[in-house]
Amino acid sequence: MEKINIGSQGFPIPMPMAILGTHHNGSPNYMALAWVARMNFKPPLLGIAVNNKHASNTAIRETKEFSVNFPSTEMVKVSDYVGLVSGKRTDKSELFDRCYGELKAAPLIKECPLSLECKLYDTVEMATNTFFVGEIVGTWCEERFMTDGVPDIEKIKPFVLTMPDSRYWEIGRCIGHAWQDGKGLKS
Amino acid sequence: MEKINIGSQGFPIPMPMAILGTHHNGSPNYMALAWVARMNFKPPLLGIAVNNKHASNTAIRETKEFSVNFPSTEMVKVSDYVGLVSGKRTDKSELFDRCYGELKAAPLIKECPLSLECKLYDTVEMATNTFFVGEIVGTWCEERFMTDGVPDIEKIKPFVLTMPDSRYWEIGRCIGHAWQDGKGLKS
Repeated sequence: MEKINIGSQGFPIPMPMAILGTHHNGSPNYMALAWVARMNFKPPLLGIAVNNKHASNTAIRETKEFSVNFPSTEMVKVSDYVGLVSGKRTDKSELFDRCYGELKAAPLIKECPLSLECKLYDTVEMATNTFFVGEIVGTWCEERFMTDGVPDIEKIKPFVLTMPDSRYWEIGRCIGHAWQDGKGLKS
Repeated sequence: MEKINIGSQGFPIPMPMAILGTHHNGSPNYMALAWVARMNFKPPLLGIAVNNKHASNTAIRETKEFSVNFPSTEMVKVSDYVGLVSGKRTDKSELFDRCYGELKAAPLIKECPLSLECKLYDTVEMATNTFFVGEIVGTWCEERFMTDGVPDIEKIKPFVLTMPDSRYWEIGRCIGHAWQDGKGLKS
C-alpha cells in the first residue's frame, strides 16, 4: 500500500501533557501545555510553545521564569480546564496548592507529581506562537512517586495528548529499553 | 508530603519516539529522535533537537530538509538501533524501504505508519545541540492506518521514550477528550 499525503496538520503524535505555571500581573496563572520538548542536555534546556495571545506569554516575557508541571491521569479534568479558560478573564490562581523552589515566579503545582522550574534562556519568535527556551534549575518530586530515589513513571502516571483527534491517553506497558534493544542488530 | 529537588535531569516525561531521516553526503541516513515538539500551527512548525556531533546535524545544515517518521511498537528494535550507531561510520541507507514526497532530501520510511517531510525554517543554536525548526510540507500515511480518512493512533501504535530510565512504552487506554473534559469545571 502507498503512503498518501494528508496535508500538514493531521498527525496524531503522543505529546506529554503538562500545565504551565507563571506569574501574571503578580498572581499565579496556569495553562494547558503539550507542545514541549527537551532541547539540550548540558545546560538542561526545555522548550515550550505558547500562543502570543495568551496571558502566559506576556507573563514569561515579564518575569523570565516559568514552571512546567506534569499532572497524573487523575488530573485530566483540571488539566483540560486550564486550557479552556483564559487567565485574562478568569482567576486561576487558587486552582492548585503551590510551593516554590529557587525561583519566585515559577509556581510548582503540589498536586502534580513532577514539576520543573525554569528560567528563560532564549526566546524564539514564530508566526503566531513564541517558543520559550527555559533552563531547568530544579526538578521537584515527592518521594512517594519515586523508586530507589528516582522518579518512577509508573507512580507518576503522566498522560499524553494527540491532535487533531483531541484525546488523552494513559501510558501503557513497557515494551523495551533504549540504548539496548537495538544492540542485536549491530553487524 | 513535600516536594524535594532532585536536580535538573531526572524527569521521566513521555516523549514521542521518532526516526529522523536525512540525506548525508547524498545518501539516506537515519537517527533515533525523541526531543521533538510542535511549535506553531500556521505555518505548521515542528522542532527537533540534534547533537552537533551527529551526521544528521551536518546533513540538515547542508540540504535544509529532513523527515520525521513515527515507528510503530513493532519497530522498537530497529528504532533503537539507529540511535546506537553513527551514520559517520555505519551505512544505514538501506535499513528501510523509502519513498519521497515533495522534497528530495527527506526520505520517508515506508515501514513507519506516519511520516512528516519538513523544510528547514529556522536554526536555533544551543550549547551542544541544534534545535532545527522545520516547516511541515506534507504528512504521509497509508489508508490502513486511518479511520474515516484520518490517521488513527490505535492503528499507528506509536510509542514513547522516558529518560533517564531509558524505557519505551506503548500508548495505553484513552482516558479523556481535550477541550471538552474540563468544561464541567467552568463556574
